[in-house]
Amino acid sequence: MSGPEGRGPELPDGVFRTDAETVDAHRLDRSGWVPEGRPFGVALAESVADVRAVLRYAHATGTPVVTRGAGTGLSGGAGATDGSIVLDVSRMNRITEISAVDQLAVVEPGVITADLDRAAGAYGLRYAPDPASVAISTIGGNIATNAGGLRCAKYGVTRDSVLALDVVLADGELISTGHRTVKDVTGYDLTGLFTGSEGTLGVVVGATVKLRPVPAATATVAAYFDDVASAAAAVNAISAAGLQPSVAELLDAATLAAVEEVTGPDPRRAGRAAGAFLLIQADGSAAEAEARQIHAVLAAHHAQVFTAGDDAEAARLLDVRRRALPALERRGRALIEDIAVPRSRLAEAVEEIQRIAKTHAVPVFTMAHAADGNLHPIIVVERATGTDSGTDSDSGGGAQGAPDGDLGANVWAAADAIFTMALGLGGTLTGEHGIGVLKRKWLADDLGERNLDLQRRLRAVFDPTGILNPGKAV
Amino acid sequence: MSGPEGRGPELPDGVFRTDAETVDAHRLDRSGWVPEGRPFGVALAESVADVRAVLRYAHATGTPVVTRGAGTGLSGGAGATDGSIVLDVSRMNRITEISAVDQLAVVEPGVITADLDRAAGAYGLRYAPDPASVAISTIGGNIATNAGGLRCAKYGVTRDSVLALDVVLADGELISTGHRTVKDVTGYDLTGLFTGSEGTLGVVVGATVKLRPVPAATATVAAYFDDVASAAAAVNAISAAGLQPSVAELLDAATLAAVEEVTGPDPRRAGRAAGAFLLIQADGSAAEAEARQIHAVLAAHHAQVFTAGDDAEAARLLDVRRRALPALERRGRALIEDIAVPRSRLAEAVEEIQRIAKTHAVPVFTMAHAADGNLHPIIVVERATGTDSGTDSDSGGGAQGAPDGDLGANVWAAADAIFTMALGLGGTLTGEHGIGVLKRKWLADDLGERNLDLQRRLRAVFDPTGILNPGKAV
Repeated sequence: MSGPEGRGPELPDGVFRTDAETVDAHRLDRSGWVPEGRPFGVALAESVADVRAVLRYAHATGTPVVTRGAGTGLSGGAGATDGSIVLDVSRMNRITEISAVDQLAVVEPGVITADLDRAAGAYGLRYAPDPASVAISTIGGNIATNAGGLRCAKYGVTRDSVLALDVVLADGELISTGHRTVKDVTGYDLTGLFTGSEGTLGVVVGATVKLRPVPAATATVAAYFDDVASAAAAVNAISAAGLQPSVAELLDAATLAAVEEVTGPDPRRAGRAAGAFLLIQADGSAAEAEARQIHAVLAAHHAQVFTAGDDAEAARLLDVRRRALPALERRGRALIEDIAVPRSRLAEAVEEIQRIAKTHAVPVFTMAHAADGNLHPIIVVERATGTDSGTDSDSGGGAQGAPDGDLGANVWAAADAIFTMALGLGGTLTGEHGIGVLKRKWLADDLGERNLDLQRRLRAVFDPTGILNPGKAV
Repeated sequence: MSGPEGRGPELPDGVFRTDAETVDAHRLDRSGWVPEGRPFGVALAESVADVRAVLRYAHATGTPVVTRGAGTGLSGGAGATDGSIVLDVSRMNRITEISAVDQLAVVEPGVITADLDRAAGAYGLRYAPDPASVAISTIGGNIATNAGGLRCAKYGVTRDSVLALDVVLADGELISTGHRTVKDVTGYDLTGLFTGSEGTLGVVVGATVKLRPVPAATATVAAYFDDVASAAAAVNAISAAGLQPSVAELLDAATLAAVEEVTGPDPRRAGRAAGAFLLIQADGSAAEAEARQIHAVLAAHHAQVFTAGDDAEAARLLDVRRRALPALERRGRALIEDIAVPRSRLAEAVEEIQRIAKTHAVPVFTMAHAADGNLHPIIVVERATGTDSGTDSDSGGGAQGAPDGDLGANVWAAADAIFTMALGLGGTLTGEHGIGVLKRKWLADDLGERNLDLQRRLRAVFDPTGILNPGKAV
């Protein structure tokens, strides 16, 4: 396809589509945000050369580019704005290399995260970051949002696993950042800067990521508490005891009730109140010893505690957490928020969320990566007619559907109160999903005007003409 | 002190010094690099207000500012260039807060790293990064260079422990980056960007850093090998076995010979060749079990292996490593290089360094953080008359002394060959010391022109008039 008047860079042959079906399949992510207007078309890139050609064209013509992987984002970052080229890199899905000695993989951006983890498994290694969407999201998308997940409690977020990147810049030029080395202080940390930049600084076309040995053992402990405060205190006591769980997931009472609406009451809690549920895993060669210590700490916090004796029992305990999001999605469209607070403020945050839900008469269910202080308050709203949930599993996906305008004022007021509360507790707007479009409104409150101004200038260094995901992130 | 013609911002009273003694005490770092000319004066900042006043003055007058902590840098980053204000923040040395629950500390930049670690100890916590200079270097300096250390093998570099920063910008305005939260994807990662930026983007006046529980136990294993290749293979086998040592230090034959010149032959190696020495520590509740596994792996690599039965024996094994730098400094001025390579290329790198030393007839001794692939090839040159070594302990300090011009052409040729070799192996110029002035020559070779150009533009966003540590880093 030619550029304007047949001159200048052209879109790569066989890659660019404008048919309604392809365009419709590439307009939304899983945030529920529906952009106004329609994209110009979709580029289904299969190579670095394709990406470079698309960027050269976009640069020459001033066309916005919205890069996407699997479109599983929850903040609207991959929503296709009017007149944009959607640059879909999901077909660039090769694992180029796995080095057992250097414990790293070199991958294309469209590799599904779980596929990488599985491939690493053949070498006794794994890719540690495990966003809930791991089975459907791509490494490129994980890098764009600096995705978190359950195992961050011990292994950190995506940024902690990215060593080096190949990035196509706004004008189509290709650069490399970082190295295959573990340590690297040569120049500014552009690798860290691109990670979490939501498609606004360049297009990641290759990544070198850390792999880690599969732990020798994993042990699972779960507990029911009378209230969230006890559960949060128990999590802090586990950390204070010098233990570092690999997973520490908290469900509040409302979420538990939604789960039990599906499963019936969990016989394990034997009629006691289900004020909070905590799922903890320890891994490594000391996993079992640590699980015993964790069990003791939880019991000392007046919980009903269960340590899994075998894999089947572990799976049954994990199931309570796994069923939470599907249980909420039965009730309506789930808007998944993503605040983070200092760990010491976790209980306060959950209790505040419960108060906010009451005040604004909005159902809010809270799940948290407790050891990180990362909370997902999930607001459930009525599903707009003619749309479906878009998720049927614990995929980390929010519901697609109606545009924001359809949400009631009370929903926005509740969201606003939640964000304001998080900032008030020394926390932040987003722990692992990104700003996208949905959180831009609160960005200056969080960062401060001068910080935000610096971020915008920094963005302009990488994208002077403003073609990379305009209207998103900072 | 007034600004030009008594108008505009002024330097803060009682803070700015121009006397020769103060100026001379603040001209150099420990790299050996001697800047031409003399600084304008030294500001001994005691508060954020002092730093802001200095920056406002510098901004108004276009005066370069060279920020320094303890001046222990090894790349010339804190060398005081002609006409500059040296901004010494070492008096800002308060630990503002230690939170046991959130496992973090809030500190001023002049806090000595070991002091923070000690203070954290009272809460059963520690500050993990431990550059060799830990007893004399400051947190601010560690942040400026993204310092590493021995324990990075398990706990990462300084950047992995920095959660949030307070930074005075080039025009004197104060911003905050990051949060007290473990997870944070709100905007670009400015915290990571400032970390390792060598005083070129702003002046860090406060930092929130992660603390970690003091490990339940630490176990120490050491081994002599016939050659470096066997030692490197053993390190890789340890990683492949899923073990993560907290320390993995390698000494090559030349370094061992220098140590034994002081101590006499180590009776432990019982007359066998000392081709390489490896010191390994494991920590955590499984430390002893891991040490047994490590012992077995080392023995399988034909090493003479010793596991410390008690603290005294551990100290004796650690002593071999601890004595290495002082032993080299007895022989002359030690120029400490700092390349990093993929771990799989460690043996090749050491062997190449030995070849380069022979080719250029320059004595080069190699110590390495082996699990990170981070090597310190140390070139020992004749000490210039009238200067002293500037170090008398394993402080991580290089020697102060003669300007670079006094180094022979063969020294530069050897250094050049070492850097070129590191890049050829997929490595980088510096793993933990920074670019400073001494490595700028090779920067474009490492990063590529376009990457370097982006870094320079990025720098200009933060420092449009070029007053922050001009001539250093990117």
